[in-house]
Formats: sequence, C-alpha cells, structure tokens
Amino acid sequence: MKDQDPQALMSEEEIIRLAQSLAGESSDGLFVGIGDDAAVLNLAGSEFCVTTDLMVEGVHFDMSYTSPRDLGIKAMAANLSDLAAMGALPRWGFLSLGLPRPPSRRVVESVFGGVMEMCRKYGLILAGGDTVGAPQLLINLCLIGAAEKRAPVLRTGARPGDAVCVTGVLGSAAAGLAWLGSGGAVDDEDAAWAVAAHLRPEPRVTAGRVLAQSGRVHSMMDLSDGLATDLARLCEASQVMARVDEKRLPLATQASALAEKLGAGALEWALTGGEDFELLFTCAPGDVELLNELVADSQPELGVSRVGEIGKGRGVHLRRADGNEQEITLKGFDHFREAPST
Amino acid sequence: MKDQDPQALMSEEEIIRLAQSLAGESSDGLFVGIGDDAAVLNLAGSEFCVTTDLMVEGVHFDMSYTSPRDLGIKAMAANLSDLAAMGALPRWGFLSLGLPRPPSRRVVESVFGGVMEMCRKYGLILAGGDTVGAPQLLINLCLIGAAEKRAPVLRTGARPGDAVCVTGVLGSAAAGLAWLGSGGAVDDEDAAWAVAAHLRPEPRVTAGRVLAQSGRVHSMMDLSDGLATDLARLCEASQVMARVDEKRLPLATQASALAEKLGAGALEWALTGGEDFELLFTCAPGDVELLNELVADSQPELGVSRVGEIGKGRGVHLRRADGNEQEITLKGFDHFREAPST
Repeated sequence: MKDQDPQALMSEEEIIRLAQSLAGESSDGLFVGIGDDAAVLNLAGSEFCVTTDLMVEGVHFDMSYTSPRDLGIKAMAANLSDLAAMGALPRWGFLSLGLPRPPSRRVVESVFGGVMEMCRKYGLILAGGDTVGAPQLLINLCLIGAAEKRAPVLRTGARPGDAVCVTGVLGSAAAGLAWLGSGGAVDDEDAAWAVAAHLRPEPRVTAGRVLAQSGRVHSMMDLSDGLATDLARLCEASQVMARVDEKRLPLATQASALAEKLGAGALEWALTGGEDFELLFTCAPGDVELLNELVADSQPELGVSRVGEIGKGRGVHLRRADGNEQEITLKGFDHFREAPST
Repeated sequence: MKDQDPQALMSEEEIIRLAQSLAGESSDGLFVGIGDDAAVLNLAGSEFCVTTDLMVEGVHFDMSYTSPRDLGIKAMAANLSDLAAMGALPRWGFLSLGLPRPPSRRVVESVFGGVMEMCRKYGLILAGGDTVGAPQLLINLCLIGAAEKRAPVLRTGARPGDAVCVTGVLGSAAAGLAWLGSGGAVDDEDAAWAVAAHLRPEPRVTAGRVLAQSGRVHSMMDLSDGLATDLARLCEASQVMARVDEKRLPLATQASALAEKLGAGALEWALTGGEDFELLFTCAPGDVELLNELVADSQPELGVSRVGEIGKGRGVHLRRADGNEQEITLKGFDHFREAPST
C-alpha cells in the first residue's frame, strides 16, 4: 500500500488488500481466500464455498423504504448472489441479527420471515445464529454452499480474447433506489418493477450453477457494486483489461423510463449503481450463444448479453455510442467513500 | 410462546425459541441446529461445528476501555469459546467488520491484528469476510471447527445424578468490567488480572477438546452470560434441574478482592456477570477427578471444580452457605432486558 501513515484513511479496496496480506494464504484446505465472492474450503475431501455479508441500517438500507421482511429477503439475496457467482449450491445459513431495544415481535418475526422465505425458495437450512441488542437494525449472514462438479468458478480466470457477458438486465436496482429517494409514487409498472428489484432482488443461483457446470465459463463474479467497479475487480484478479460497449449494455427498459422521468442516466445506474445481483462472467466468444441457451432453459425470461471483451493490459474502458473510449475503472460504490445516494 | 401480540416486546430467550421454531429441524446433514453453542453440520461425511457472534460498540464493548486490538481478540475469544464448548478444533474464520467512516488505518490494522493474533494462537485461517461503513464499530465472526473423535458434546446430555463442573475460576470478567466502570486505576495485580480477563479472555479450546475426547462428559456449554443463566439453559436443553453449592463455587480471588473494594458481591459476578468463557459441563461424579487431571495436564494452572449436581425437575437452585436454597434461574444477562452495567 502506498500510504503507511497510521492516521490515514482507507478505501474499501485498501482494506481488502490489507485483509489479504494478513490472512491465510491458500493452504491447509483453503483453496480460495479473501478476494473472491466466497472462500473455497476443502472439508473432508469436498469443496464448499463460504460467504458473509453485513448490512447496516442507514448505510445499506433505509427502514422508511424497506420493510423488515424485505430486509431479510435482501440480506439473503446479497449472500446467495455470492454463492451463485461461484456456481455453488446453497446449503446452510447462519444469521446474526442486531435489534434496537426493545425488539418488537412484529419486526423480529418479519425479518425471520423474509430470511426463511429465501431459505425455502433456495433450499437452505437456517442452522444457527446470534441475536443481540443494537442501536440500529443490523443483519449479518454467513452462508455455506457446496461446490459441485466444475464449480467453483473464480474471478481469476479471465483471458485476453474472452467475451465479457452479463445475465439479465442492468440498472434496475439503482433505478428503484433513485425513484424511492425522489419520493416518486410506486403507481406504475416501471416504478413497481424497479422498486422490487431494489428491495427484493433475485439472486441468480440457478444460472450460476448452470454456467459453472457447463465448464465453458472462465471467470465469474456477481454485480453488487456496479459493472464498472466489479469488472475492474475481475480484471485486477485476472491481470487483464476489459472493453465494454455502451451499445451492448442490456439497460433495463424500466430503468430507462424512470431515468427519463427523473432526469437521470440509466447508463450511469448500470455502471455504478450496484445491487443488480446479476452475474458477470467471461468465456470464449464462440460459447456465448450456448451459454445463453443453457441459462434461458434453466430460467425462462433470463438471458445472457455479450457486453464487451477482455484484452491485455489493465483497467476497464467504455466504448461510447459515439465511438470514443473512456476509462471507467472503479467508479462504483466504495463503502467508505460516501453514503449511498439516499 | 405465551404472548402473540405483534406489538409485544421479546426477550432473548423468546427470540431463540422463535428462531428454533422457524428454522430447520435436524435434517439434510444438520445434526444440531439453533439452541446449542454451535451448529453441527455433516459435510461430506465429517462433522463440523459452526458458530457466529455479533458484537456492537456501546452494547458489548466500550471503546473508552477497549482498544481496537483487544476488540479483535475478544470477538475471536467469544466465538472460539463456542467451538470449545463443542470440543471442536477451530479451522476457519470469517470476519465482518463495520467501521465508522472514514476508517483510519490504525483502527483497521489494530482490529485485524487482534483477530490474526488469535488465529495464529488457535490455529485458524482467516478465510473471508466483509468490511462496510457503519455508525459504530461492529464485528461479526463466523467460525468453522472440526468435530473430531467423540466431539461434539451437546447441551442436551445432562442426566440426574451428574456432577456439575466448571473449568477455571468465575467472576473475573465481571470484576474487571465493574472496576473499569468505577474508574478504578489498573495499578495493582488484582485489577490488572480482572481487567485482562474482561478485555482479553482466554477461550478454553484445548480443555474443551480434552473433555470431549475423554468420552466422559455428558453435556457441555461455555459460560458467556453467567452461571445462573447458562446452567438454566443447559438444564432446559436436557430437561433436568441443577443444584449449585455456593461454597463450592471457584470465585476468582482477584474478583473477591475487587468486590470488597467496590462494595460489590463476587458471588453475584460469578452467577450473573457473564463473559468468563469458562466451560460448564456435567459428568458422572466418579469421573470428576480424572477430568480434572486431564485438563490440568493439557493446560497447567487450569483445573476443574465440581460446583453442584443435576437432579430431576426444572430450574437452577443455589444452596447458600447458610444452608438455605433459592432459585436463581435466568438471572444473567439478557441482551434485550437491559444495557450492560457500564
């Protein structure tokens, strides 16, 4: 790290690098440690993926928009998305809950209700946890998934010449957050769709497993902090650069409609908005069509879009619609740089 | 649960029962779910124990007493103590850290430093985690341990006629917290010892493994919320009652000395103080001496004290020094009933 001043402030990327430098190297049954979507452990001869995510009221969610049930759903979705990005089968969940005192039965039952809804939907067992008093709502989940067959798929496998692909559409969650923040009424289909994408995202667990088991995916991660930031992380992990075509980005039509009403930019939402929880992956260009079919077969209405390509070098470049190129590396959400937009 | 009013407030015990009622029953590779010190999972034919604990600034620790390094140490100790209570061998850790923005390098490096010190000391690998912005310091750990040989030892195995035993001495951590809260200077050995017990507790990982592997321990848990509360939980899990002899309780001599200076009660600290992180277990009365020797062999200066016995019935009773008996069930720290004493 450049700056060793103990009073210095740290960015999220610096903290992750610090953790990587301090924590265990791959050894003793640990195949992938800090720096991918989930750790990969070899337990008794089989590989398991483990991920953990902490969400804090006022930082990651606003209880004036988010019901306690939706909070349980979203926290599960964020963690399931990390397992999806490895291609792992979700198995067990551990829930830590911080509750303002005194906790009301309605809030507790609702958060648990959301968590359990996702456990049932994705086949997990809630196996343990901790509940404590706290000044605001806090939710930490730690999920364990099984890495079957060709899983896990890591961030480190992108190669020059790979196609860069995403599942689904982009910008929906950021559009929903912006709409809620503007005080807009949720009275038309576009707004309802975007707000649902923000509050109750759908992790791509099935698509992630199908992509991993195809054996055709070279690298994969989930889109939690926006395409610009997350693709830059994938490129750094793989020591490559990426070029993304603006014209190829699958912007959610609902996001474009809301962007127009708000005078905002759907492209910006797709690149930097975060929380779309779609999958970002790379593969040989000739495999994109096959992978699109496999994903669509496993989940109707979900497709794969080829949005760019991997090259030699560093960073992420955006080829604008007018043909100009600009670097867009690390433009997404840094958990320490600023508060979310609402 | 008795009270189904959605506006009703919930105690910690009620929340645990709610989680138990909603979460997975023993099935699909889950042998022990919510309600013991750690969950027990069967992964690929071997048993693993998983525990998670969330600590919140202002609730579980006070940064005017606790250095960031001590916070890392204590959070690890609390989680390691849960694995110790199963007799498990600690293997992997997952750290979620909430940091006030902007985080300083000193705080971040110190918390990690404390966590890594404990990882090295107890042989864990820090395999993953999450760092986020938060209004106050938050630390969640999820630890995975291997249940070897006769482990895990559960809370459910206590039988009428068992001896009730504890490792080490009691009341130290509560004495240290009370001393810090009184503004007392840490300038003599008693105060330094008690404050260290509060800030940097030593989880009984080796003793827990030795006890489990002896095959002579019927039930075990760790003392995190005080003997009264924790023994009541063990009795409830085993459907038995316990009688504890005041005269047999191994009060820390340092706690007794500080109690005298503060006009407080060392017995109260031992019963309700919490965070001693000693092990509480039951066994046949004839095995106490053997287990004491095994524990002392594995860790010099650590012993086992027989403090009471298990009987038929419910609840925990204290036989006072004057021969009178009183029920002391659930007198310890309820995370939602009140703030800690400082």
